[in-house]
Amino acid sequence: MASIGVIGAGTWGTALAVLLHGKGHQTEIWSAIRKEVEGLSSARIHPNLPELRIPDEIGVTAELGEVMKDKDLLVLAVPSVFVRETARKMRSYLKKGQIITNVAKGIEESTLMTLSQLIEEELPGAEITVLSGPSHAEEVSKGLPTTCVAGARKRHVAEFVQSIFMNQTFRVYTSPDVLGIELGGALKNVIALAAGMADGLGYGDNTKAALITRGIAEISRLGMEMGGKLETFAGLTGIGDLIVTCASMHSRNRRAGILIGRGCAMEEAMAEVKMVVEGVYSAKAALALSRKHHVSMPIVEQVNEILFNGRSAKEAVSELMLRDKKIENSGLEWEEA
Amino acid sequence: MASIGVIGAGTWGTALAVLLHGKGHQTEIWSAIRKEVEGLSSARIHPNLPELRIPDEIGVTAELGEVMKDKDLLVLAVPSVFVRETARKMRSYLKKGQIITNVAKGIEESTLMTLSQLIEEELPGAEITVLSGPSHAEEVSKGLPTTCVAGARKRHVAEFVQSIFMNQTFRVYTSPDVLGIELGGALKNVIALAAGMADGLGYGDNTKAALITRGIAEISRLGMEMGGKLETFAGLTGIGDLIVTCASMHSRNRRAGILIGRGCAMEEAMAEVKMVVEGVYSAKAALALSRKHHVSMPIVEQVNEILFNGRSAKEAVSELMLRDKKIENSGLEWEEA
Repeated sequence: MASIGVIGAGTWGTALAVLLHGKGHQTEIWSAIRKEVEGLSSARIHPNLPELRIPDEIGVTAELGEVMKDKDLLVLAVPSVFVRETARKMRSYLKKGQIITNVAKGIEESTLMTLSQLIEEELPGAEITVLSGPSHAEEVSKGLPTTCVAGARKRHVAEFVQSIFMNQTFRVYTSPDVLGIELGGALKNVIALAAGMADGLGYGDNTKAALITRGIAEISRLGMEMGGKLETFAGLTGIGDLIVTCASMHSRNRRAGILIGRGCAMEEAMAEVKMVVEGVYSAKAALALSRKHHVSMPIVEQVNEILFNGRSAKEAVSELMLRDKKIENSGLEWEEA
Repeated sequence: MASIGVIGAGTWGTALAVLLHGKGHQTEIWSAIRKEVEGLSSARIHPNLPELRIPDEIGVTAELGEVMKDKDLLVLAVPSVFVRETARKMRSYLKKGQIITNVAKGIEESTLMTLSQLIEEELPGAEITVLSGPSHAEEVSKGLPTTCVAGARKRHVAEFVQSIFMNQTFRVYTSPDVLGIELGGALKNVIALAAGMADGLGYGDNTKAALITRGIAEISRLGMEMGGKLETFAGLTGIGDLIVTCASMHSRNRRAGILIGRGCAMEEAMAEVKMVVEGVYSAKAALALSRKHHVSMPIVEQVNEILFNGRSAKEAVSELMLRDKKIENSGLEWEEA
């Protein structure tokens, strides 16, 4: 069994720490917030996962040096906006060749870098891997069957991460396409906003399936231009994660989208959902990437119009439906006439 | 504007006839059932689409010769089990080069042929095209935004079909991959059964997203081996149609799956749903195709075990979760260690 440090004590970090402990790994959690450390140590419950008991054997600490000491694997589970800052603080405790699995999703707005790219910049010499897929923490903590993908450039590293996490209800696949995994996870929230808007407008399952499918087609076009693989966008970390986000009321992005579809302004929707809505930031980053790489992303463009230029959601859908007639995938070949 | 005959007066044929009439086409519907012809002619309502008024200008006939006479396009909208028989009857009225758009989905159990293949066999000389995608008739008849794909081997034919159907709320893309479109549409029902079973077992959104994503991966592997394109399975007629089927209570396959997940035997579930459950037949065809083409389809295998060999749904899910550790897509390349 392995020795593992989980950096970040949100719902996902906590659910993964309990899962890892359940497999027999020696597991420790870190939080930057002393109050959170005290709360978890004494109550042994995360406030947003009230049914999950955190076993006493899982250490909880506020010391980065401690959670990182002599670990076979570090799981980085802080919100995407804190990833760079946390990685920077980790630098002085880092051992050479340390395997780190990042489980946050996002793109840094100022640099347009993926999270593993910026972690590599802050922590040279570490072996950065990712774990992603359709995996609401609430459901994983209840042991409901869930699948994920462990991404690493080297096969033996990916297989190590797979063997660390996989259990009877948590099935882990491996993949070398780290970039594709990260782009799918980060960009899906823009499409979840759009799907929520369609729900808010009172449209049906046909419309939502169209937005999800054409949404992943946009993400694939951009992601492939950037070096990701089509297979990844068609897989668990691409369409799979997008499906779960668009189906679930757990998703803040979808909930904010529903409010906007009903006519709320972006600021009102964010105030009502009362939490950071990642899709609003990802929408900007996605638009910037589509321009940088000269890839057409009509849904992303319309979401930006709605969020930042006051276009109505209804008008945006009409615009999408009435664009020029298109071939579904321009790469496929026709027979001679 | 064009002159169009719609062969088959189910919900989909009726919804499409009204849509085509709304675009200004001269439209006529045929049904094999005289009672249905009389009912539609007089009541101008399809019993399963009670909110949709069928305009008086749409002719309704029981004469195949009449509905096929001097038409720019024929829409074939009979249930998949009646496609061969109907095509055979059409032969004597067929004009050379007639464009036919088939909108039914299925694989013939005895021959393992797709519907367009068997239509081509019965109607040599006709130009066979398909229209498919995430499109519940109920929602199309209400004008909710919907997307589809017109498939034809020749580009100008696909663009003709696209231009015939596309309107403000019904967006049509084109594709040359007729085979991929048909395989996705036919095989999705097996996965919808599995997704329904997961719902019936009380599993969550994570499990369902996993079944949908790994389900389309199986369909893609088989479909590509048979000559279909990955892009198609990742598109509206593949994953898009599968998403809508797995999300909706309109789907008989999903409803039957839920009952089986709760412990009903297959026969009980079919009796309770009170209609033909296509996925039960497709499950057999999919298994036969996977053996014929030597493609691994673990979800299809487990669905067959449950339907025909009395395995419990819960046991089948465990089996799927605990298979050998896998690479998500074995085609991608790893870096040297």
